[in-house]
Amino acid sequence: MPFAPLQNDSFLRACLRQSTDHTPVWLMRQAGRYLPEYCATRAKAGSFMGLATNVDYATEVTLQPLERYALDAAILFSDILTVPDAMGLGLSFQIGEGPKFAKTVRTEADVATLAVPDMDKLRYVFDAVTSIRKALNGRVPLIGFSGSPWTLACYMVEGGGSDDYRAVKSLMYSRPDLMHQILAINADSVASYLNAQIDAGAQAVMVFDSWGGVLADGKFQEFSLAYTRRVLAQLKTEKDGVKIPRIVFTKGGGLWLDDMKDLDCEALGLDWTVNLGKARTLVGDTKALQGNIDPNVLFAPPERIDAEVAAVLESFGKPHQGAGTGPTHIFNLGHGISQFTPPEHVTALVNAVHAHSRRLRTAA
Amino acid sequence: MPFAPLQNDSFLRACLRQSTDHTPVWLMRQAGRYLPEYCATRAKAGSFMGLATNVDYATEVTLQPLERYALDAAILFSDILTVPDAMGLGLSFQIGEGPKFAKTVRTEADVATLAVPDMDKLRYVFDAVTSIRKALNGRVPLIGFSGSPWTLACYMVEGGGSDDYRAVKSLMYSRPDLMHQILAINADSVASYLNAQIDAGAQAVMVFDSWGGVLADGKFQEFSLAYTRRVLAQLKTEKDGVKIPRIVFTKGGGLWLDDMKDLDCEALGLDWTVNLGKARTLVGDTKALQGNIDPNVLFAPPERIDAEVAAVLESFGKPHQGAGTGPTHIFNLGHGISQFTPPEHVTALVNAVHAHSRRLRTAA
Repeated sequence: MPFAPLQNDSFLRACLRQSTDHTPVWLMRQAGRYLPEYCATRAKAGSFMGLATNVDYATEVTLQPLERYALDAAILFSDILTVPDAMGLGLSFQIGEGPKFAKTVRTEADVATLAVPDMDKLRYVFDAVTSIRKALNGRVPLIGFSGSPWTLACYMVEGGGSDDYRAVKSLMYSRPDLMHQILAINADSVASYLNAQIDAGAQAVMVFDSWGGVLADGKFQEFSLAYTRRVLAQLKTEKDGVKIPRIVFTKGGGLWLDDMKDLDCEALGLDWTVNLGKARTLVGDTKALQGNIDPNVLFAPPERIDAEVAAVLESFGKPHQGAGTGPTHIFNLGHGISQFTPPEHVTALVNAVHAHSRRLRTAA
Repeated sequence: MPFAPLQNDSFLRACLRQSTDHTPVWLMRQAGRYLPEYCATRAKAGSFMGLATNVDYATEVTLQPLERYALDAAILFSDILTVPDAMGLGLSFQIGEGPKFAKTVRTEADVATLAVPDMDKLRYVFDAVTSIRKALNGRVPLIGFSGSPWTLACYMVEGGGSDDYRAVKSLMYSRPDLMHQILAINADSVASYLNAQIDAGAQAVMVFDSWGGVLADGKFQEFSLAYTRRVLAQLKTEKDGVKIPRIVFTKGGGLWLDDMKDLDCEALGLDWTVNLGKARTLVGDTKALQGNIDPNVLFAPPERIDAEVAAVLESFGKPHQGAGTGPTHIFNLGHGISQFTPPEHVTALVNAVHAHSRRLRTAA
């Protein structure tokens, strides 16, 4: 059964550097704890993984923010750590803490047992993609995603979150050969994972290099970017004759835009430290830009949110209009939305993006 | 009584962009928990503040790393939060946790009671500076320091450390007027504090903008850099006819070097995400550069440390030689040394800096 035709293609058009009548907007982690209805579903599911592995719940929470806000895209509800979990590392989430792996990958013996996981172990994700795509019924496109090879490796070596990346960097600086082995396996796993999401119905895919920015200059290129390239080289670029845009987001990667501008992808995600106008000049006529308001803006009163949204849109400048392709902007936060965000402030943000971006297009 | 004449002026010369026969090196937080002798003194002192407020203990720990390593500078042992403590916010350190303030600064009423503190409350710091300078007996120069106005404000508003800066950014985005009031008071406090350190014997001063890098583009310039400028404009630039170099370090500030290159200071500190060669080109013929190896390199074996040190020195390239001034490099970590660092690995790093930097000067 084919999926319903797409009614709002502004996000996909902007990814492909085609004109739109407004700047499309979606928010990283838009289905999350700041929404009371999300918390209610999570309570029913019992745990985060109970939520992520249940197709009905995952579908339900993915659609929740679309009911409240005029968002231009949906993103699969899942976690970036599903892939290492499928590798057998044993993912769990303790209440009030971050993710934890039962096993870590730190020695030659650990690396020797690591392999691209059987994608059947991730079937719950692909089933969720298909279910969400059907439930969307063509309203907005669905984005699939994965952590980057480096970001997954951080968690696999550390065994969870970290504030100093001591374990993963110790391994990288001491045994770069082992680190490269892990990253190669991760890259091939991520590529298979994203391709299966595309097969299941994802209309765009995004690679989250959440921890690329903690690397030293030179090491970022060698241990993160090279493996993002390896993922991109294996990704399907269309499905049933329709292009599947690929977005790469490196938190803290603003210094390396020059290295990223020739990546084989359609869009680059940027955090709030980057000036969109400068990034547009630097990246040139090759990529859409996605971002980049500070999520903490959402703690200010609506009239201040409105002003900050306008400033971000204006820092990008007037996007491409008319036929053909040119510079385009997809509005987003520079990082995931905070769980403490007042939900009504998100309304102010989304509406401000639509209103100001229409005005910007008609300005002299 | 005048202080003893300086025997190793390589650090001060490099700050002033004068030639040296090797690249001087010191390490942020070089007197710290990775040293067993530091832990022994801290145990005697009973607490971190007991250590920092006791002139003899502060002198003892400041000199400890110089006994082990051929470092080219000493830095006052103290904390960046002494200034808000003197403002009456009530600083304490719980074991195993970061700093905590008894009072926070979040409302109009809180800001109304804030003022530049009586410098007499910080007498213990200035006494420590004089005591350390005497104890150094001219071995290497002594660096004084302070947190930047923005970084102090982060702690004052949050009441301690933070991983999302929600409180301080909420205030900044909601009530920029209050934020500017806090920052103006902080800037004038920091300037008085550093000038008093210079009067007491500090031979260089450094402003740590540890949290400048969490700001959005535009906000960094408005809420951090503008107040660092306000500090610099008030600082003494010489003492008894001898120049006092000023160093500004913004963690995560690599994207804003273009905004920082005209700061009224002698040196810029850089973290490991920055390419020193590119920074040298961008900053041009105006500032010495300090940094920037990843502290996690110190967890690798000595032969790998040696190679990484060489790579950092080579990324800067050959420094100025001969008479006059030109590009110079002061070797440092890109952030404070980890408490888990094996002390013998620091020997490898310091010796590698001296050996490779001498070789680099004679290379064709």
